[in-house]
Amino acid sequence: MKIESVDFFYVSMPEVLDIGDGSQDALLVRISAGGNEGWGECEASPLTSIASYVCPMSHSACKPVKYSLEGERIESVNDIYRISNLVHENSLDLLQADHTLSGIDTALWDLFGKMTGEPVYRLLGYNKANPKVPYASQLFGDTPQESFDKALKSKTDGYKAVKFGWGPFGTKGLKADIEQLHAVREGLGKDILLMVDAGTVWNGKVDQARERLAALKSVDVFWLEEPFRNLYLEDYKSLSESTPKIDIAGGEGCTNFAQAQAMIKYAGIKFIQIDVGRVGGISAAKQVADLALVSNVFYVNHTFTSHLALSASLQPYAGIKDYTICEYPVELKPLAKEITKTSILPDEDGYINVPDKPGLGVEIDTQSVKKYLINTEIKIGGERVYITPDI
Amino acid sequence: MKIESVDFFYVSMPEVLDIGDGSQDALLVRISAGGNEGWGECEASPLTSIASYVCPMSHSACKPVKYSLEGERIESVNDIYRISNLVHENSLDLLQADHTLSGIDTALWDLFGKMTGEPVYRLLGYNKANPKVPYASQLFGDTPQESFDKALKSKTDGYKAVKFGWGPFGTKGLKADIEQLHAVREGLGKDILLMVDAGTVWNGKVDQARERLAALKSVDVFWLEEPFRNLYLEDYKSLSESTPKIDIAGGEGCTNFAQAQAMIKYAGIKFIQIDVGRVGGISAAKQVADLALVSNVFYVNHTFTSHLALSASLQPYAGIKDYTICEYPVELKPLAKEITKTSILPDEDGYINVPDKPGLGVEIDTQSVKKYLINTEIKIGGERVYITPDI
Repeated sequence: MKIESVDFFYVSMPEVLDIGDGSQDALLVRISAGGNEGWGECEASPLTSIASYVCPMSHSACKPVKYSLEGERIESVNDIYRISNLVHENSLDLLQADHTLSGIDTALWDLFGKMTGEPVYRLLGYNKANPKVPYASQLFGDTPQESFDKALKSKTDGYKAVKFGWGPFGTKGLKADIEQLHAVREGLGKDILLMVDAGTVWNGKVDQARERLAALKSVDVFWLEEPFRNLYLEDYKSLSESTPKIDIAGGEGCTNFAQAQAMIKYAGIKFIQIDVGRVGGISAAKQVADLALVSNVFYVNHTFTSHLALSASLQPYAGIKDYTICEYPVELKPLAKEITKTSILPDEDGYINVPDKPGLGVEIDTQSVKKYLINTEIKIGGERVYITPDI
Repeated sequence: MKIESVDFFYVSMPEVLDIGDGSQDALLVRISAGGNEGWGECEASPLTSIASYVCPMSHSACKPVKYSLEGERIESVNDIYRISNLVHENSLDLLQADHTLSGIDTALWDLFGKMTGEPVYRLLGYNKANPKVPYASQLFGDTPQESFDKALKSKTDGYKAVKFGWGPFGTKGLKADIEQLHAVREGLGKDILLMVDAGTVWNGKVDQARERLAALKSVDVFWLEEPFRNLYLEDYKSLSESTPKIDIAGGEGCTNFAQAQAMIKYAGIKFIQIDVGRVGGISAAKQVADLALVSNVFYVNHTFTSHLALSASLQPYAGIKDYTICEYPVELKPLAKEITKTSILPDEDGYINVPDKPGLGVEIDTQSVKKYLINTEIKIGGERVYITPDI
């Protein structure tokens, strides 16, 4: 089947708040071929990704992303890998291309799954999808009391694992961080896994991260996530070898396989967290999961947006039994909830299951998308190169 | 001084060819403060970088680049480093931001140089700028004969070092590559340094790169550049340890300091090539040069566009005496030649000298910029967020 159309839809909450919540806007990608439609989502900055799709060519290694899509055929999974590689070749010097590819690649897997009637995880070579333990992923409250209340709610909701991150953590001194950590552990009780996400707050300040290790240990933290920005390999490594020993998680900032490979090999991390909406889509994420498996590193999805993105994030490691944990955002904005008709909810035992339906198994609610649509228009040299398409 | 305006100008040749020539378009940045103007250039895909400057915020770690510029003050070099760090913090998840920052950071150094009457290299802490041996950087010809002719011309023009890259190299089999290599060596004679740039053509195919080592050795190649895409650390390392031994150069694809650090530490390269128009500007490039100095790796500029970009590319290592070589593009398109009034030409001994004038020491030809200007307009939700400004 020939790709007939690739459409981008920029959706946003009416008001975007200055908080670490990635569910406030989204760039949806719809790809049509032979009567089927596949959907994907690019993480963050919709306008910039749209621009990278439609921009004029700068030179042979800086072509717009559309150059690698138009007129291409999808007849096997190899075509998806081939297109992914084409984008890397043709848009080598177009930095944003990997983000844009992420949504496109995801939509291609969804599309091909619908064409063949197979769930994506089966197309990736897994016989079955194993249920995952969701960790309830949320922001620290502004005060320890607020964080305590959130922790208690997650416990009441039945979660076996909970992550707190961003918010004031790391910005108000050691004492304030210790109070936050004790508040969340107190709210959760002693049996629930607790992860902490530093949101790169200690970048360039390994000592400040190291100062928190004792407190993190004292509340029995399962992992410390993203103490520094992506690829600060030596700082990650140094912290991972410090005492008391806390397992480190990172990698959400990886925008291609090579970056994830560097993190797995040199950063001393125990958990590699991959965002399918950034790393180049499901194709690149699967490659990372395969590498993690032979590298004694645990693969975990990173996702903080819609259930379309959630399903996509689960597919690359759905069939790997040893990788038992998944991120599960519990504070989604209405937009991120409403753009799919399908919700992926914990089952009665509290596990998350990948939808056992063709493609990603998630139905888009086009009426809701319409409601949140941001009309966008780009003109170059008087010619309109992008306008929000009909949905 | 408060930053009063930050303006982007997208310029392009009327026709952009599908060849590895980065001088066919450019994104110029003009920053004004207190009666002075600084200029910088972002490498590749002007529209995408403009979009990253004006896009709406997605969340706290994905703000438009402009968020970190508007209302800021420039009163010392520390303010430039501070703004660079602000962009990294505020636009952490905005992939294109590093490219956009590259032009902005460069313009800020130019601006502060003009404010203080100092050349940028002095602001960076160097007492003097050492002359560099330029290598004439050009594309392989379509045929060995064409490459021979180009090599002969470079010899006649008096260059002591010459680089050939891209074009058909690596795409037509081993025999064709050997013929190209012998043709250029024959044209140059035996005394001129010869560098070869593979333009990532063997990505994922270390064996194919390894097969060329003997031929590269036989024509006495000074370095083999970018056999693979950026950050494929293990492939770089593996090739660097193969025999016959050829020194490897790479790093032009680095878009921040952490990536360059990874290449220096783990890729086994002998030359780190930094493009100021991609790595985050002069601030990040200087940090890389400092690291190279203590890591037994040679820093070389990467540049293939205007003489504004050339001057910027030289500043970060201008004062390091041991780093004697610089890239010097010799096949610039008219646009890249004409947008500056200043040309940086080899002196009578064939060396390239950084202009000894305030800032980057390069004057923009606004009449020429006007000639190549591509009118661009972006609307979001009916509101115009960008239109090409007056020059």
